[in-house]
Amino acid sequence: MDGNTEYGRKKFKRSRSHFADRITADGKESGWPVEAGRYRLVVSRACPWASRVLISRRLLGLEDALSLAVTDPIQDDRSWRFTLDPGDRDPVLGIRFLHEAYDARETDYPGGVSVPAIVDVPTGKLVTNDYQQITLDLATEWTALHREGAPDLYPEALRGEIDEVMDGVYREVNNGVYRAGFATTQEEYEGAYADVFHRLDLLTERLAGQRYLVGDTITEADIRLFTTLVRFDAVYHGHFKCNREKLAENPVLWAYVRDLYQTPGFGDTVDFDHIKRHYYAVHTGINPTSIVPAGPDLSGWTEPHGRESLGGRPFGDGTPPGPVPEDERVPEGHRPVP
Amino acid sequence: MDGNTEYGRKKFKRSRSHFADRITADGKESGWPVEAGRYRLVVSRACPWASRVLISRRLLGLEDALSLAVTDPIQDDRSWRFTLDPGDRDPVLGIRFLHEAYDARETDYPGGVSVPAIVDVPTGKLVTNDYQQITLDLATEWTALHREGAPDLYPEALRGEIDEVMDGVYREVNNGVYRAGFATTQEEYEGAYADVFHRLDLLTERLAGQRYLVGDTITEADIRLFTTLVRFDAVYHGHFKCNREKLAENPVLWAYVRDLYQTPGFGDTVDFDHIKRHYYAVHTGINPTSIVPAGPDLSGWTEPHGRESLGGRPFGDGTPPGPVPEDERVPEGHRPVP
Repeated sequence: MDGNTEYGRKKFKRSRSHFADRITADGKESGWPVEAGRYRLVVSRACPWASRVLISRRLLGLEDALSLAVTDPIQDDRSWRFTLDPGDRDPVLGIRFLHEAYDARETDYPGGVSVPAIVDVPTGKLVTNDYQQITLDLATEWTALHREGAPDLYPEALRGEIDEVMDGVYREVNNGVYRAGFATTQEEYEGAYADVFHRLDLLTERLAGQRYLVGDTITEADIRLFTTLVRFDAVYHGHFKCNREKLAENPVLWAYVRDLYQTPGFGDTVDFDHIKRHYYAVHTGINPTSIVPAGPDLSGWTEPHGRESLGGRPFGDGTPPGPVPEDERVPEGHRPVP
Repeated sequence: MDGNTEYGRKKFKRSRSHFADRITADGKESGWPVEAGRYRLVVSRACPWASRVLISRRLLGLEDALSLAVTDPIQDDRSWRFTLDPGDRDPVLGIRFLHEAYDARETDYPGGVSVPAIVDVPTGKLVTNDYQQITLDLATEWTALHREGAPDLYPEALRGEIDEVMDGVYREVNNGVYRAGFATTQEEYEGAYADVFHRLDLLTERLAGQRYLVGDTITEADIRLFTTLVRFDAVYHGHFKCNREKLAENPVLWAYVRDLYQTPGFGDTVDFDHIKRHYYAVHTGINPTSIVPAGPDLSGWTEPHGRESLGGRPFGDGTPPGPVPEDERVPEGHRPVP
C-alpha cells in the first residue's frame, strides 16, 4: 500500500487519497498553516509516490522545516512500520506503525495506510496522504520556508503544460507500470504494457532534443517521471513485466534519468536496497518466493550522461541544494555513488 | 518437466535420465540400431534440452531419417501432449500424451515425463530421454544417415576440450539458470546467480577473440550454449531472475548468439512463442498469474553481428543445411526473420 495502491482485486485500481487536507501558507481555509517544525513527513524510500516528496523537500531545502520519518521497506499485516528506528518506534511521533496516526485522525478508518503521509506532530494526527497534492503544496505554499536559491518547481507560466505532461505520465507511466504488474488477465496486462511504452516513446521523442520535460529547468514533471524511471530496470522491467526493453537500452531516457540521478536532491534520496526488497518481498501475489533479484548491475548510474550539451539550467536562477543532512543519508551500499 | 526438471522441492536438483538406452550404429550392445524411419523424436520447442536435438538433427540433415513430433508448449497434469496435432494425437505414434510411450516401455514408471524423447515407432516404446547423450549419438552413431556436407559436431581430436567446456556450461549456465529460477531460499538463489554470471564472464572472455567455443567450427558445445542463451532475455533474465544484465547488454555474447541464430539450423528451430508461453504459463510456483510478458523486443536478433571478422568456418569442410522441411517450419510471427 503505497500511494494508495490496492491490488489483488479484479482489476487494479489506484484509490483517491482519503485524507486530502492541504497545508497552506496561512492555513485559513484548511486549518493547517505552514509552520516550521510542526509537521512530520512519513515516507518509504521504496515508494515512488513518497519519493516525489523526498526529492521536492531536498530541492526546496525544507529538511529543517519538515522533519522526516523513514519506514521499513517491508510492511507487515499492520502496514508501514518504524522498525528502522530504535525501539521500533518513530522518535518524534512515538508510534510504532503509521496506522496509529491514521487512527488518531479517524477512528476505524477502513481504507489502506499509505505513504507519503504528513502528520501533525502536536496532535499525532494524520493531515494528508494526498500524493498528488503534497509536492505541489511544498512548491507553492511552503515558499516562506524554502532555502535561499530554491528552484521554482511549479512556475505559474508553465503550469498548463506541466499539468498536461504530468497527466500522461501519471496514467501511462507512474500508474501504468502498476497496472501492468498487478494485472490479473493477459488482456489487461497487454493493455497496460502498451500504454507504458506508448508514453515512454512519446517522452523519448520529447526529451531527445531538450534536457527537461517542460521549459529549460527542472520542474515537478521531471520529479514525477524520475521516480518511476529510477525503479524501471530494478523492478518494473522484470517484476511488473514492462520488458519491451530496459531503460538502459533507451539512450535518451537512460541519459535523462542518469542526469537527474546525478543532480543533488535526486539520486541522494534513492535507496535501491529498499526499493528492491519492498517490491519483491511484499508482492507475494506475483513473487511467491519473495526472493529478491541480485541484479541489475547499477554501476552505469554514475557514468557521464552527456545531457549538458542540450543546455538547460537545472535550477533556473537558483542553486543546487546543499549536502544531505547526516542523519538522512542513504546507507552505504544502497545506491551507486561515483 | 523438460530435460528431467523437477522443482518445488527443497533444493532444485536435475534428475539423471531414467531411460538411458543408446541408439548406436550397429545396435549390437544396445539393441537399438540406427535405422532410417524407425524412430520418432519428440520435442517441445520451448525446452532447451530438447532444442539441442532439434538443432543437431537439422545441422546433420537427419530430418528424413528421424521424424519429428512437436508437443504443445503447455503441459497439463498429464505432462507433454500432442494438442497441436489433428485430433490431439501424434499422427505417427497415435498417442495423445508422451507418457503413453513411457508407459509402453515401463509399467507404472513413477518418474517425470521429459523431452527430448526418442520413441521406437514399431513398438511405441520410449527408447531414451537421455538429454546428455542423444545429440552425441546423433553426431557419432548416426553418421551413415548424415546428409552430404554434414559438419563434424564432435570431432575426435577436440573431444576433451569440448567435454570440459560443456561441463562448465552445463553446471553453471544450462542448469545454473534453473537453479536460480527454482531456488526456494535467497541464499540458494544468490549462489546460482553468481555461478551463472561467473561462467558467462569466462565465456565472454573466451569468445571475445574466437568465433566458436572450441576450434574454428561449430561443435556440440556451441549448440548447448546456444539453447540457453537464446532464451536468456526472453525468460531467464526476468522469470528466473538472472538479471545482472541482459544478454543484449553483453556485446560479445549478444553477437555470438545472433551469429548462431542466423546460421541455418539454429534460428530456424527457435519458437519464441512456445518458449515464452511454456515458462510463464507452466511455472505457476514463480508466476502465479501465468501472464506472459509481451517483451522483449526481438527485432535485434536479425541484425548484423559482425562475427565473420573473427574468421572461423561454421561448417568446417562441410556445408550449411538446406531449408527447413515445410511441415516443420516454425509458424510465422513466432520468431524474428529478416
